[in-house]
Amino acid sequence: MFLRNCWYVIAWDHEVPADGLFARTVLNEPIVVFRTASGFAALEDRCCHRHAPLSKGRKEGDHVRCGYHGLKFDAVGQCVDAPGLDRIPPQAKVRTYPLVMRNKWLFVWMGDPVMAEERLLPDNYSNDHPDWRNKPGYMHYDTPYLLICDNLLDFSHLSYVHEKTLGGSTAIAQARPEIEPLERGVRVSRRVPDVPSPPYYQKIRSFKGNVDRWFIYDFLFPGTLLMSSGGKPTGQKEADPANSVLLHSCQTLTPETDASTHYFFQQSHRADGGDASVTEGIYQSLLTAFNEDRDMISAQHAAIQRNPGAAMLPLGIDAALVRYRKALDEAIARERV
Amino acid sequence: MFLRNCWYVIAWDHEVPADGLFARTVLNEPIVVFRTASGFAALEDRCCHRHAPLSKGRKEGDHVRCGYHGLKFDAVGQCVDAPGLDRIPPQAKVRTYPLVMRNKWLFVWMGDPVMAEERLLPDNYSNDHPDWRNKPGYMHYDTPYLLICDNLLDFSHLSYVHEKTLGGSTAIAQARPEIEPLERGVRVSRRVPDVPSPPYYQKIRSFKGNVDRWFIYDFLFPGTLLMSSGGKPTGQKEADPANSVLLHSCQTLTPETDASTHYFFQQSHRADGGDASVTEGIYQSLLTAFNEDRDMISAQHAAIQRNPGAAMLPLGIDAALVRYRKALDEAIARERV
Amino acid sequence: MFLRNCWYVIAWDHEVPADGLFARTVLNEPIVVFRTASGFAALEDRCCHRHAPLSKGRKEGDHVRCGYHGLKFDAVGQCVDAPGLDRIPPQAKVRTYPLVMRNKWLFVWMGDPVMAEERLLPDNYSNDHPDWRNKPGYMHYDTPYLLICDNLLDFSHLSYVHEKTLGGSTAIAQARPEIEPLERGVRVSRRVPDVPSPPYYQKIRSFKGNVDRWFIYDFLFPGTLLMSSGGKPTGQKEADPANSVLLHSCQTLTPETDASTHYFFQQSHRADGGDASVTEGIYQSLLTAFNEDRDMISAQHAAIQRNPGAAMLPLGIDAALVRYRKALDEAIARERV
Repeated sequence: MFLRNCWYVIAWDHEVPADGLFARTVLNEPIVVFRTASGFAALEDRCCHRHAPLSKGRKEGDHVRCGYHGLKFDAVGQCVDAPGLDRIPPQAKVRTYPLVMRNKWLFVWMGDPVMAEERLLPDNYSNDHPDWRNKPGYMHYDTPYLLICDNLLDFSHLSYVHEKTLGGSTAIAQARPEIEPLERGVRVSRRVPDVPSPPYYQKIRSFKGNVDRWFIYDFLFPGTLLMSSGGKPTGQKEADPANSVLLHSCQTLTPETDASTHYFFQQSHRADGGDASVTEGIYQSLLTAFNEDRDMISAQHAAIQRNPGAAMLPLGIDAALVRYRKALDEAIARERV
Repeated sequence: MFLRNCWYVIAWDHEVPADGLFARTVLNEPIVVFRTASGFAALEDRCCHRHAPLSKGRKEGDHVRCGYHGLKFDAVGQCVDAPGLDRIPPQAKVRTYPLVMRNKWLFVWMGDPVMAEERLLPDNYSNDHPDWRNKPGYMHYDTPYLLICDNLLDFSHLSYVHEKTLGGSTAIAQARPEIEPLERGVRVSRRVPDVPSPPYYQKIRSFKGNVDRWFIYDFLFPGTLLMSSGGKPTGQKEADPANSVLLHSCQTLTPETDASTHYFFQQSHRADGGDASVTEGIYQSLLTAFNEDRDMISAQHAAIQRNPGAAMLPLGIDAALVRYRKALDEAIARERV
Repeated sequence: MFLRNCWYVIAWDHEVPADGLFARTVLNEPIVVFRTASGFAALEDRCCHRHAPLSKGRKEGDHVRCGYHGLKFDAVGQCVDAPGLDRIPPQAKVRTYPLVMRNKWLFVWMGDPVMAEERLLPDNYSNDHPDWRNKPGYMHYDTPYLLICDNLLDFSHLSYVHEKTLGGSTAIAQARPEIEPLERGVRVSRRVPDVPSPPYYQKIRSFKGNVDRWFIYDFLFPGTLLMSSGGKPTGQKEADPANSVLLHSCQTLTPETDASTHYFFQQSHRADGGDASVTEGIYQSLLTAFNEDRDMISAQHAAIQRNPGAAMLPLGIDAALVRYRKALDEAIARERV
């Protein structure tokens, strides 16, 4: 059960080749994406004739031709050529998906096309902004996406899963976040004063003493994290770019299937806060940490699968994820009325 | 649901060793084949005692001895030795299958043994004929065999799947085949005049201009293709062995399980039409092309499995496969009355 | 359906690190084992909070801390620290298992803890006894444990599966064992007079002529073999350590899941019967032979899975395994009253 009337990221723009076809499955639906003269097209990746994947065919201009028996489809999915047939039956067509490119992310709309409104796109500005620098990342999970949402909604895990990478202090787990409801998600604000700077901050800036850290993020349907975070010397009133770490991160989860997930992410530093080596250092730290997450969440998923009905024990630290899951369930239920 | 009263190829003769046991599964039934003084024997590959595969034991003359507790069976499946027992119970036996070797193919009969008639064997003469030369091939598919039947019943795919190998021209897909019913299958005749000679013809003969091509084949239960095909210089009335390509091909599909298939094949050229390098060249071309097929059919199968109930869109080019599937379904239904 | 009120071996003592966590699944239940000041602890390997495996966390003295959100549990499974919480809810606990170490095997009790009596431990003395030498072994099977019990209860397979290793003569299969009921299993005595000494005896002792062999073992719930075996020169009345082979073996099967098994084993020779090279030689012979068993039993299992309902044919040689399975079924049924 997924939220349908929603934009899901299907790819970074650089993943779709200039002259080829790009295949990815979203919400159990295989989709083929390709570039057209006016932008991009996204079609059902299954020929209506004998169900061969269109992505195994070829791009011919703004069309895609099936590689099995040669049916050709235009950018809205209508068959426009069928070798060996006098007449193309009007039912010869494949589903098309609304697609929007915004700040290097390609979003597909998985619900009713008439409801596809751009105002529902997240504000992923730092993906592509002159003031910010990042290296884009992608990771695949063999777990349901909600377990990864849970992870992103409770940063207490930074103290344990990421002790030697993003975390560095048990104070993160001790800190109590503020949680506010949003129209399509929750806002989580966690402030962690007077702690040692974590290993990966040291790649950006040499702090002499402790730092005050903060993580302020919106977590929005279907599973998108937009976060400002950073650290400043403890006691200093405001963050000063000259002696602080200032980051902005955009991350989003797209269910591939019921049990697997695409994870798109970047963590940006300010353009005046370091050169390409800093960008690369942040990216590598993130990759290491996200592998730590995947390792833990995959083990958690295996334990859940071994005993699917078993109850978990809700604790106070689960407040954000409980609220988010409830809001998401309600939104899904509203769609089904 | 398979046709039972039917000969299925279980092996090329060279696959069965002189002094050992050969195991292969047909229609979900594991079978062990071995040579005897008078020919071959085919037994159920499962000891009646504790279900160990007999093929993990050893051949002892015309008998096979189980490698677990040592029961020995004769060529008709009766237990004739049981170490540690005073008396061999008469129920100690395994099923035997009628087996015929004809032109290097070993056929097993999967239905009622009393109905096993040799007149139902296909005329696979070019497998083993002094006028023809070939190199035998075998390939394994992880897809149901009917999807491969479909492929062999619609050569329009040559223009797309095999564009750079067997095909070479979209005219093959444009040509309309004649289709005639046969007692146990269909006959398909496709003539493609005045087209460039395909890449693999060039290994056999240097055509200066275009060629007239033809593909005339019977496709017979359970999934056997017997085909005469070739090409002659365009405009020439009859195919002249001196300046034409003349081929004969025997191919057959044997279901291993509901979802996997054995594929036995050869494509012969005339003995006066080239030396061993031509034979090898044709074999390699076929192998490359059959890998192209398997790649496409496996992708098609995955798409079907993702959405098992979804309807396909029948088109005119499916005429042969629709007729063949219908005839096969009827034959299966008649067996079950 | 497993016998629950029973000691199952979970590990050799050397498998559990001094300062870490050891994870193994028994009867479908993942368990984490670690050393404490007073011995060992065994806990359910699943945090009560979000079901992360505790074994992915860390040992902190006599406690284990979850590596996801940092909950800490003591050696009896009670949560004693929960970062970010004012109060630890009393339900925050995980299951604990009685654990006993006896002669290098760690046993866990999988049933009602109040019934965990040490008198039910098997007499695995040769694992750890000054008069005996061995090298401990472990092997994993992807088959249900009862098929391996069957194997150990009918040594007629030595003549066929282990013809070139432990067996060496078809006389083993011809010999009739005596079978006696025990309170929790069966006793099997098989004497094989006047046979060639098997290949692996030759590593221990050079016999000039034939030997009289014997295999006397108890096979006890849940699947433990305790065996005295050996060979002496044929005709000699008593086994003389100076010119005979005298062995003692402890082997035990622990179901990992319904379809996989842990196999712990050792075969000891007398301390005065050879040096470390003899110990290693026996171990390697055993390993080779147990791989022969696993190969055969895995093939048998695959054949059974292909046709799960199919009847086997009981023969006289199955007497011990039939009795053992019946006794075990009755014991399981008694637990469920």
